[in-house]
Amino acid sequence: MKNYAELWIGYGKRTRTKGTDCLKKIRLSGVPGSDRVLRSAVKELQTGLQSMLEITPEITFGAAEEQPPAQSGAQILDRETVRVSLEGEGLTISSKSGAGIFYGVCDVLRTVACEGDIRETYAAGKTLRPSNPLRMLNHWDNMDGSIERGYSGKSFFYVDNEIVLDERTVDYARLIASVGINAVVINNVNVKDAASYMITDRYFEKLARLGEIFADYGIRLFLSLNYASTIEIGGLRSADPLDEEVIAWWKDKMAEVFTKIPTLRGFLVKADSEGRPGPFTYGRTQADGANMLADIAKEYGGIIIWRCFVYNCRQDWRDRKTDRARAGYDNFKPMDGDYHDNVILQIKNGPMDFQIREPVSPLLGGLTKTNQMLEVQIAQEYTGHQIDVCYLIPEFREILGFHTFCCQGPDTVADIISGETFGSRYSGIAAVTNTGNDFNWTGNYLAGANLFGFGRLAFDTSLSSEQIAEEFVRMTLSQEDEVVRTILEILLPSREIYERYTSPLGIGWMVQPATHYGCSVDGYEYDRWGTYHRADHLGIGVDRTDKGTGYALQYHEPNASVYNSPEKCPDELVLFFHHLPYTHVLHSGKTVIQHIYDTHFEGYEEAQQLAAKWESLKGRVDEEVFENVRERFERQLANAREWCDQVNSYFYRKSGIPDEKGRQIW
Amino acid sequence: MKNYAELWIGYGKRTRTKGTDCLKKIRLSGVPGSDRVLRSAVKELQTGLQSMLEITPEITFGAAEEQPPAQSGAQILDRETVRVSLEGEGLTISSKSGAGIFYGVCDVLRTVACEGDIRETYAAGKTLRPSNPLRMLNHWDNMDGSIERGYSGKSFFYVDNEIVLDERTVDYARLIASVGINAVVINNVNVKDAASYMITDRYFEKLARLGEIFADYGIRLFLSLNYASTIEIGGLRSADPLDEEVIAWWKDKMAEVFTKIPTLRGFLVKADSEGRPGPFTYGRTQADGANMLADIAKEYGGIIIWRCFVYNCRQDWRDRKTDRARAGYDNFKPMDGDYHDNVILQIKNGPMDFQIREPVSPLLGGLTKTNQMLEVQIAQEYTGHQIDVCYLIPEFREILGFHTFCCQGPDTVADIISGETFGSRYSGIAAVTNTGNDFNWTGNYLAGANLFGFGRLAFDTSLSSEQIAEEFVRMTLSQEDEVVRTILEILLPSREIYERYTSPLGIGWMVQPATHYGCSVDGYEYDRWGTYHRADHLGIGVDRTDKGTGYALQYHEPNASVYNSPEKCPDELVLFFHHLPYTHVLHSGKTVIQHIYDTHFEGYEEAQQLAAKWESLKGRVDEEVFENVRERFERQLANAREWCDQVNSYFYRKSGIPDEKGRQIW
Repeated sequence: MKNYAELWIGYGKRTRTKGTDCLKKIRLSGVPGSDRVLRSAVKELQTGLQSMLEITPEITFGAAEEQPPAQSGAQILDRETVRVSLEGEGLTISSKSGAGIFYGVCDVLRTVACEGDIRETYAAGKTLRPSNPLRMLNHWDNMDGSIERGYSGKSFFYVDNEIVLDERTVDYARLIASVGINAVVINNVNVKDAASYMITDRYFEKLARLGEIFADYGIRLFLSLNYASTIEIGGLRSADPLDEEVIAWWKDKMAEVFTKIPTLRGFLVKADSEGRPGPFTYGRTQADGANMLADIAKEYGGIIIWRCFVYNCRQDWRDRKTDRARAGYDNFKPMDGDYHDNVILQIKNGPMDFQIREPVSPLLGGLTKTNQMLEVQIAQEYTGHQIDVCYLIPEFREILGFHTFCCQGPDTVADIISGETFGSRYSGIAAVTNTGNDFNWTGNYLAGANLFGFGRLAFDTSLSSEQIAEEFVRMTLSQEDEVVRTILEILLPSREIYERYTSPLGIGWMVQPATHYGCSVDGYEYDRWGTYHRADHLGIGVDRTDKGTGYALQYHEPNASVYNSPEKCPDELVLFFHHLPYTHVLHSGKTVIQHIYDTHFEGYEEAQQLAAKWESLKGRVDEEVFENVRERFERQLANAREWCDQVNSYFYRKSGIPDEKGRQIW
Repeated sequence: MKNYAELWIGYGKRTRTKGTDCLKKIRLSGVPGSDRVLRSAVKELQTGLQSMLEITPEITFGAAEEQPPAQSGAQILDRETVRVSLEGEGLTISSKSGAGIFYGVCDVLRTVACEGDIRETYAAGKTLRPSNPLRMLNHWDNMDGSIERGYSGKSFFYVDNEIVLDERTVDYARLIASVGINAVVINNVNVKDAASYMITDRYFEKLARLGEIFADYGIRLFLSLNYASTIEIGGLRSADPLDEEVIAWWKDKMAEVFTKIPTLRGFLVKADSEGRPGPFTYGRTQADGANMLADIAKEYGGIIIWRCFVYNCRQDWRDRKTDRARAGYDNFKPMDGDYHDNVILQIKNGPMDFQIREPVSPLLGGLTKTNQMLEVQIAQEYTGHQIDVCYLIPEFREILGFHTFCCQGPDTVADIISGETFGSRYSGIAAVTNTGNDFNWTGNYLAGANLFGFGRLAFDTSLSSEQIAEEFVRMTLSQEDEVVRTILEILLPSREIYERYTSPLGIGWMVQPATHYGCSVDGYEYDRWGTYHRADHLGIGVDRTDKGTGYALQYHEPNASVYNSPEKCPDELVLFFHHLPYTHVLHSGKTVIQHIYDTHFEGYEEAQQLAAKWESLKGRVDEEVFENVRERFERQLANAREWCDQVNSYFYRKSGIPDEKGRQIW
């Protein structure tokens, strides 16, 4: 009996996998037998093959070479590359690192689980080279056990301000390493209260042990840092990055922390953001703050990841000049080149905050001399709280494939964060994770596809959304072809469907304040967060062109001209960049208002179809799994209906323009 | 040095009071010297005269007659009437009860505090007869110390689920008795969790002592009851009022409770309301539920006060037929005459929920064979959270003076709740109180006027808003005539000003959901609470006429016809009863839209004027008092500005009709 809560490492029995004879002899090459990750790889290989195929492989070890720790992203990529090939009767997996071997093992196990042909897959040899040096998950877990924007129960790291280490911790490390994650931040970027004290004696011992668990799976440990620690736990009066006392305090503290947590690789910092303290308080730049910490951490090989989420969160809705979208670029671009080489700027995918549709942040590619890391969110804060199904990989692929035109050569977001475009010392991709202590990790079983998919895509940005989804389903939920096809039909269009029944044409928001679930068209319209749709009787949208806030001009050409023009701007972003009359005709040939009506009716109808598809799986997937998702679809439909009706009523009541098709608007 | 936190019983020195010689000899007559309230009256008299005038009166006691406890409202009125008259050189205060004597004493002390002429005031003799038998405060204090809709700190009755008895408890009893309050419910009508256990051994001893403290001041103790107690603490499966087991449980429980808390006079029950359990769950009527409890309580002279706040709080905003406004009448009118004579129905002043302007509930006077009690709210839930100044007495006077046309004779709300109209056995008025453990009881000093004023008006419904306000100011804040006049200029128009900058023309709501402070025009528009304004591009308002929900017809004629007609309906309620185009011309000669613009600009401007008036008092009122109110005015202005701008922007954006005067709309 398969344990579905183990998700894709449940390793249920497989009967259709072909060419499995080569799995009886496996040679792991390139890494000393003493390597900790190699040992994990061996265990995983044995468990997986035994469990799925009842094969106990004969494992041998090839020539090994001890490698010094990687000092750059390029070195990480080099070390973590793995080659899997048929050699003689058996399979050889070779890499310069235990982590590479582990990824090779997981590739083999994945092929088994998906019932591929092992011999054929590896006949010509298969090289897996990670696309990104850092492939990271960010936990927004608080020390009290709550999770900010968590929709899968409570934290499995913390209970009542204590760190918990148990079997589940190891399972978690296995789970994420198996899809290629190699770094994790284990506490909320909003470091408040007790959590500030993560870097004090109280936690060192358990953090050290936690770091060892992760290290066994090639995962680097990072901590979120309270920028004001010098004040809050240091007893100083300042957190000025140029203040000698401040610097001295951090020197002592970093020495202590890196010594007591030997696996620690660095820190994530949210400074000057949404009420958090930061260098701006002292008239210093973000670079001053980041560099101060980075210079001290350097001695220990430490990295400072600095979030670019800095904007005025006390804006006046009457003010049409200030534009939150501009803030990231305005705050960080001027110091491009000033950040030291062990600083990475972590940039949200869009200029706002993980809406279902945003343009790609102009900082990505806007910065040309700074280490960059992309931040996405698989916690479904604005995308349905893991109640509504919303498979996000298609969105992430769009983002990664976006041409920034930052140079003549490789210029996509994927190119930039791989380190290739600018030869960055460090780079990568991070996701705010969607996990919690729910027994199946992500609440909704289908939300597991985003955890799986993020890891897979981070490791290999060339994978298609379909392939990733199919791997997830076959490894986790079912091997029956028709069931697999049905679940793919649910996952693949789910993001566009969610977009259709929520906020239209890239304008975003329209959500219930605070919770961010459910519709409230004016919920943020008269608030202080810089998130407005500016709808009136005649039209809707924010003018971010050269005649408006000028945000469109933060892009390289030709993106700037495209976004700046209501004619050229892609439909799906047109209200993000332009204030348009309801009667404006889109590329689709529809007016804005008719687009709103049509997409909302369609979106709700399509959501119903997804639910019906799931319903058709009754008796064909595990009952627990079926019921888990069915119950959520029920809530999704209620949500989709509210969105559809409220948005349509709102715009009908405001514009007075009837639906061409005469459907029911309330 | 006066302690302003003692409010109107601070008894600071008075120098201008005239005719005080008669205060040296005071005769208290009609009540045995052993009477507990008489003893309190003597103490109050001594404290007050000593403190204000340095007079130590010679107190003598006149003929006394022991009275049996009052068995009806009429008897209460009779017992609590008091006569104060000059007799010989001294003053005689005579009543059939200690409470009456106490009220007489307080009248004398008030006259002293307001620097009147004692001799002249009582020369011809002055009889004070309460207008209402029950004059009650309802506390929404929770056992954990929080207060639902409390804006003056935490509960002074409960800390961490324990009852607190201290000096402040006595001060509170004095404070409210001094303005004529004679009954109090000390726990939240939403009785949940631990609070259900108020009627178990854990609390009896302290409740008994608390009841004694109140009894010393003629205040009757009531408790809110969880209707489902049989299930929650009784271990039964049912709360069906006709179930014999349920009845038997309540018989035992009531015997226990009334025995262990000898001063207890009865219970307040919120059943079948906003998720609370009730008789509807068992297919029984509200009368079934109330009568079952009342029949059992009868043996102990107990009264059951049953709230009429029963409506569908899971309404669909798309549904235009269901009307929350109708619910009270629809649910309670059919059983008129069925309620036993120790049941009182407690009816909110309006059909919705304490909005700044509502029509009077049609249940008042709609019921003709049932004991009725009016419920108002001095906790400023929808009227500014005791941040914004909103003196509510003018509103309460309008309500009390409303002609219900329920009969040929005395037909106002005041007549009905006095018991006169229908010869009711019990009746009265209750206010949800605005107190908390803030050192000055009501947070904002000016909010004290509502606590004072409610008591005064409940005792004597013929008092004017001006007189009450002036008494409050002179007793509490200042005796300087110009200061008094300035504060009156702030208090008296404050309710209309608050109305002007908030929701227009009786439509109500438009508040931030949950908190109920601050503007959110659509905040409740697409929600489940039955609270809609139905604004679209052309017009706004709810059609509650015979062509709409029919609510207007719940009134007696001619009220029904007046409300049913957009031409006859008073402007201030016109959007409550009618959906009208923005271009509809009001009695004022203005269109609806222009009225919205004008009142909002004016309301904000007037709020600024109020703040400026207060500013002019710097140095002329106590500094602590000045700063307390000044800080709140600052927040009121921010609030008023948001209301003004958001409402105007909302309706301008929706209607497309510009302001005639071309003022700034965002």
